[in-house]
Amino acid sequence: MIAVLCGGVGAARMLAGLQAVVDPGEIVAVVNTGDDTELHGLHVSPDLDTITYTLAGAVNPATGWGLRDETFHAMDGLERYGAITWFRLGDTDLATHLYRTGRMREGATLSQVTGEISRAWGLGVRLVPMSDDPVRTRLRLADGREVAFQEYFVKLRHSVVVDRVRFEGAERATPAPGVLDALGSADIVVVAPSNPVVSIGPILAVPGVAEVLKARRHSVVAVSPIVAGAALKGPADRLLVELGGEASAPGVARFLSSFAGTLVIDEADAQRRGEVEQAGVRCVVAPTVMRTPELAAGLARAVLGARGMAAGPSGPRGAAFDA
Amino acid sequence: MIAVLCGGVGAARMLAGLQAVVDPGEIVAVVNTGDDTELHGLHVSPDLDTITYTLAGAVNPATGWGLRDETFHAMDGLERYGAITWFRLGDTDLATHLYRTGRMREGATLSQVTGEISRAWGLGVRLVPMSDDPVRTRLRLADGREVAFQEYFVKLRHSVVVDRVRFEGAERATPAPGVLDALGSADIVVVAPSNPVVSIGPILAVPGVAEVLKARRHSVVAVSPIVAGAALKGPADRLLVELGGEASAPGVARFLSSFAGTLVIDEADAQRRGEVEQAGVRCVVAPTVMRTPELAAGLARAVLGARGMAAGPSGPRGAAFDA
Repeated sequence: MIAVLCGGVGAARMLAGLQAVVDPGEIVAVVNTGDDTELHGLHVSPDLDTITYTLAGAVNPATGWGLRDETFHAMDGLERYGAITWFRLGDTDLATHLYRTGRMREGATLSQVTGEISRAWGLGVRLVPMSDDPVRTRLRLADGREVAFQEYFVKLRHSVVVDRVRFEGAERATPAPGVLDALGSADIVVVAPSNPVVSIGPILAVPGVAEVLKARRHSVVAVSPIVAGAALKGPADRLLVELGGEASAPGVARFLSSFAGTLVIDEADAQRRGEVEQAGVRCVVAPTVMRTPELAAGLARAVLGARGMAAGPSGPRGAAFDA
Repeated sequence: MIAVLCGGVGAARMLAGLQAVVDPGEIVAVVNTGDDTELHGLHVSPDLDTITYTLAGAVNPATGWGLRDETFHAMDGLERYGAITWFRLGDTDLATHLYRTGRMREGATLSQVTGEISRAWGLGVRLVPMSDDPVRTRLRLADGREVAFQEYFVKLRHSVVVDRVRFEGAERATPAPGVLDALGSADIVVVAPSNPVVSIGPILAVPGVAEVLKARRHSVVAVSPIVAGAALKGPADRLLVELGGEASAPGVARFLSSFAGTLVIDEADAQRRGEVEQAGVRCVVAPTVMRTPELAAGLARAVLGARGMAAGPSGPRGAAFDA
């Protein structure tokens, strides 16, 4: 069994790669919910939805999130009311948030609804939110203001300096059912190439998760989301620096070293292998940029190979990754 | 000042007629919220929205409710999840429910949000929900089952026999700010040709409303929603009979006689004027079927004329009423 710590777009592609080379029923994705937000009364879970839509082959290839062929009539309508429209929810995508919210108002947990949504899309991979309790990533900006994740990420387009990140509610949160079991009993735990600070960070902040990973550090394999000193997507590079680290493969190694025994870095960073190993992390060099499903499957093979695990021939492919 | 007790489609047309012949700023609509429902976590107020969309000239002419030129992508998406889709919410219409729900989650009252939505659509008439507290119309069916209004009205298409109607929460509800003032101080109170049982009934069930009306019964003018023994729309005719009354202009007179001193009945029912007056209700005969905005304006003049009130020449007209 393979457990994967997941953020959004990068994790979705990593999972697509993994399910192309192993039985999807063997994969459990433990997904960040620190980005979850309430918009217009709806519970929105961006990372869960990005993964669902990607694995279902329905994701918008131009963005890597949301649905392809979307309309935005509800958003246009909200403009009339002067409501928040910087977080654009497509009309078909709204169905997911409406369903989730309706079910949670009926008393269902986020895990239960996530299972229902996954089944409705026919996913083979098992998706589990990191917690059924609310954990909310909040960022303090250089001007002293503290903002919620989506305000930082979407409204401010992460073009502001952050000096502190915290995961509100994490200390009181319980891992969702199955999370600690999956992380403890999996043959390998993969840390997807997601933002270490704001995608992997919240999962590690849920009590019990970091402890389980530390105890099996030798079989935890992370993939660096930083290639040649830059994040492929989002602000991971700037956040690492702003919080006192380094935007580089060795910087990622130092950030994750307490619980990840191995780091897969891109070929572009091959010359920094020594620095990664100085951080006490075994280093594997492979092509990590998942521009296509074939590259994602190749990366999945490299990740499994790092623990000596066999991967089958690639199965059926999803749509091309364009973003 | 003119206060109007309102249900949905019939009331919306009555208001359109009134605002064509008097200054819209002189009109206060007190609107039924017993039909309100929560769907997918959203607060839906069907009567308020039907009135808003009608007065804004944006209503779907084929149905008399909802918006013209709608798409239903969110509903199609909900079908994937096996969610409730018998209550069809259009994508642009969803914006209204999203805005209302978001604002109410922030602590705004239904009255406040109703004011905001009315202003966004540029309405001249003042819309006030009957109460900011939840009042929910529930109907007991002949088989003993009790259902919520929308289940009766939309899902079961009101083709079932009802043996009791109650307004859950009414006894604990307070009239919304301005309701008793408007009903007490208006020059005339108009009871729109809405379903007496399930549209006007919930408003009367809010503590204080019936008392104010009874005290000024002589200046309360109702319009019969029953013409030639049948409801123009919906189940008003069957409900009146099922609850022990009569589906006729005199039946409406008897139902409303305790608080309405005058009833406007259709020309088709002219021969029943005597029976209306036997119920102790003054009777005015006029064309009441508002197929067009001109007919609605004509009915408005007849209603105001019943109390000796002058109406100006018809102002600008809304779209045709096609439903």
